[in-house]
Amino acid sequence: MHYRLALIGFGGVARALVEILRNKGNELPQKEGLELSVVAVSDLKLGMAEDPDGLDLAALAELPNEPGALAALSGGSAEPDNEAAIKRSNADIVVEATFTNPETGEPALSHCRWALESGKHVVTTNKGPVALAAAELTEKAEAKGLAFLYEGTVMSGTPVIRTAEQSLAGCHIAGFRGILNGTANFVLGQVESGMSFDDAIALAQSEGYAEADPTADIGGSDVLMKVVILARALFGQDVVASGVPCRGITGLSEAEIRAAKAEGHRWKLLEQSILRRNRKGVSPARV
Amino acid sequence: MHYRLALIGFGGVARALVEILRNKGNELPQKEGLELSVVAVSDLKLGMAEDPDGLDLAALAELPNEPGALAALSGGSAEPDNEAAIKRSNADIVVEATFTNPETGEPALSHCRWALESGKHVVTTNKGPVALAAAELTEKAEAKGLAFLYEGTVMSGTPVIRTAEQSLAGCHIAGFRGILNGTANFVLGQVESGMSFDDAIALAQSEGYAEADPTADIGGSDVLMKVVILARALFGQDVVASGVPCRGITGLSEAEIRAAKAEGHRWKLLEQSILRRNRKGVSPARV
Repeated sequence: MHYRLALIGFGGVARALVEILRNKGNELPQKEGLELSVVAVSDLKLGMAEDPDGLDLAALAELPNEPGALAALSGGSAEPDNEAAIKRSNADIVVEATFTNPETGEPALSHCRWALESGKHVVTTNKGPVALAAAELTEKAEAKGLAFLYEGTVMSGTPVIRTAEQSLAGCHIAGFRGILNGTANFVLGQVESGMSFDDAIALAQSEGYAEADPTADIGGSDVLMKVVILARALFGQDVVASGVPCRGITGLSEAEIRAAKAEGHRWKLLEQSILRRNRKGVSPARV
Repeated sequence: MHYRLALIGFGGVARALVEILRNKGNELPQKEGLELSVVAVSDLKLGMAEDPDGLDLAALAELPNEPGALAALSGGSAEPDNEAAIKRSNADIVVEATFTNPETGEPALSHCRWALESGKHVVTTNKGPVALAAAELTEKAEAKGLAFLYEGTVMSGTPVIRTAEQSLAGCHIAGFRGILNGTANFVLGQVESGMSFDDAIALAQSEGYAEADPTADIGGSDVLMKVVILARALFGQDVVASGVPCRGITGLSEAEIRAAKAEGHRWKLLEQSILRRNRKGVSPARV
């Protein structure tokens, strides 16, 4: 089976995917009967490149992270064109890994809609479109016999959604509970060790864990979207984010965090959902 | 899609499966497009029952655990006939969940061969056939376009093999390490709390964790088979059990176990395998 991919957004996720395709080039067709090529890449900063017969994976893997860098590839241009890469490329699957506005889900939501409307499967790591419009997008996909997949939106590469849907298909899942934001967890750990909140956030940013604007990580809204996504994937429930109680770690003081540690406890930002009682929420808990 | 099952061995695993089919009867066809019926059951103690149109799941679920009990079902007999249930039933899938001799893999190994030779898929929870003859059975299955599946042989219902093969298909798995024998782990815990080894084993038996003969659990050979199965499933390596170093918990004294606990450590029976260095083994470790 040969699938052609269009990569929309060429940051860490898409680069890691290209690296896998490059390194597993021989293994995937052999082991999985699956051949993958990349026929289009578009990224707001890097520009766009297209080749219906497949772009050079080595050149993509080594692409410098500089404005317009895709212009250097054959079939490349310094001008991004997400819409063309999605609608007009000969891709079978659109890999959507751009940034997302948590209020509107854009631009990722439009990318997903365009892809499905033009008959292409969608795989996305963007929480926005799934948290805001999973029902619509799933319906659009099913109506055309297409896949709309979003395993990477929760716990990055660690399988949770597919495991629940496939391997645990015979089980009754009663609830879930976990620490699902790495930045908040890192900040709590640093504050426990004596660092100030602000320094811990700055460190998380310089280490590449936190976004330039850490509000979603620290305030809990990133985790809230994950609750909404998991409630749908695991329980088949359509949950509206605004109806889910959510407290991030911003209300905790440095003194509270260190006092807990001194007493052998730790503050953690937990997301949880219990199906039976229909309770869902995000809040810091002393564990 | 409608599949007809033949259940070979009707102990805890097969009964739990019948319970799921009974409770999820409406949900599976709807959610997974999958309809399952049971057309044959054969068990050395309980006898045999067969109905090409599907046996009554409620009657199976409530079957008393008494010799010849299957005779009470319509199409039932007090005489078991595993071979007939496998070869002559109209099943599409043989669910193999009998006991197994760890040296020969029998009778489970023959059950698997019969099933594949008569064109039926095999799902087994029996470690023996997989640890001893996975290569042969997989080849037989592939030659006929049949499935030979054995997720339940390791970690019971917790998905590990399918997760590695499907959800982690793009990953390089460098090794695995874990506590994979519940009986040994239970015994260690009880000895830590002051019980004697013999009493702890007797308690494990009376609670239903340990087999009547606990040698495989305590001596490590149960875990050894799991190492062999995982080495194949996760690394594609054909490992011969006799080539893998294996020490169970029998060499530990009660005093050693309690001394470790007093110092804040615990003895655990670990199975591990590191692909790169090609090391595999089972041994107790102080953690």
